[in-house]
Amino acid sequence: MKPITMVRIYLTEAEKKLAPLLKYLHDDSQVLGVTVLRGISGFGKSGKIHSAHLIDLSFDLPVIVEFFDTPTKIDHILLQLQTLIEPGHLVHWSAQVNDNNDNS
Amino acid sequence: MKPITMVRIYLTEAEKKLAPLLKYLHDDSQVLGVTVLRGISGFGKSGKIHSAHLIDLSFDLPVIVEFFDTPTKIDHILLQLQTLIEPGHLVHWSAQVNDNNDNS
Amino acid sequence: MKPITMVRIYLTEAEKKLAPLLKYLHDDSQVLGVTVLRGISGFGKSGKIHSAHLIDLSFDLPVIVEFFDTPTKIDHILLQLQTLIEPGHLVHWSAQVNDNNDNS
Repeated sequence: MKPITMVRIYLTEAEKKLAPLLKYLHDDSQVLGVTVLRGISGFGKSGKIHSAHLIDLSFDLPVIVEFFDTPTKIDHILLQLQTLIEPGHLVHWSAQVNDNNDNS
Repeated sequence: MKPITMVRIYLTEAEKKLAPLLKYLHDDSQVLGVTVLRGISGFGKSGKIHSAHLIDLSFDLPVIVEFFDTPTKIDHILLQLQTLIEPGHLVHWSAQVNDNNDNS
Repeated sequence: MKPITMVRIYLTEAEKKLAPLLKYLHDDSQVLGVTVLRGISGFGKSGKIHSAHLIDLSFDLPVIVEFFDTPTKIDHILLQLQTLIEPGHLVHWSAQVNDNNDNS
């Protein structure tokens, strides 16, 4: 096992930040791995509810972008993302990832 | 960055707890943000599998309610949720959120 | 509250590891609870993007298997999963779960 930092970024589909964020993570930062999850409902600071239940085909559902890498690399990425991601929308914590040296 | 507590609550769609939980989080506790995710499969203590694969249109899929706020506010919310959420269905951990003072 | 270890395993649908993993977690390890989430997009070490947007009906979307149990039990499970899960695809961290003794 080795230490990593897990990151979760909370967006909505309507924000149009998903594409530039994924482009940055994939092309520029080349982070270890990214998963994008779509929520079925949610609300943020505004209190406005984004839900698949309220309107037939919502185009403003919550989207979570989740990724992890070494703490040093994530520190660098968080600096780069400062202008793209609004305050209160990026969460991170320490975790461990399995690696080639896991034995016994 | 500032410290927060992340919370994840595990429900199933059939439980009918999602609506009162979201109402509480949105109207009463006014937590910073909530995202609801639907799983495609899962099982709990009962060992009974809830899956989109087993029956054509399952109405008992797993649902995760995820939210975060300051540790003090989450402590208060966890007390309020004690009667609504069964033991073993609410998980929380410490994390950091980006804020206005992140620089350098 | 009592201490647990949270685990997230990152697969893709095409890998065919989901079924044996769930069978192990459900039948053999009898872990407290498991939720399977399907991502809408993602990429891993290869840099190859797995996305619902690129091809009409993707059969290689990212899948996250999430579960938790006591730290001792998870340590044992992680050893058992070493051969099934590739390096860099299993993440874990410490958290707390609500239990019967939560009061005050």
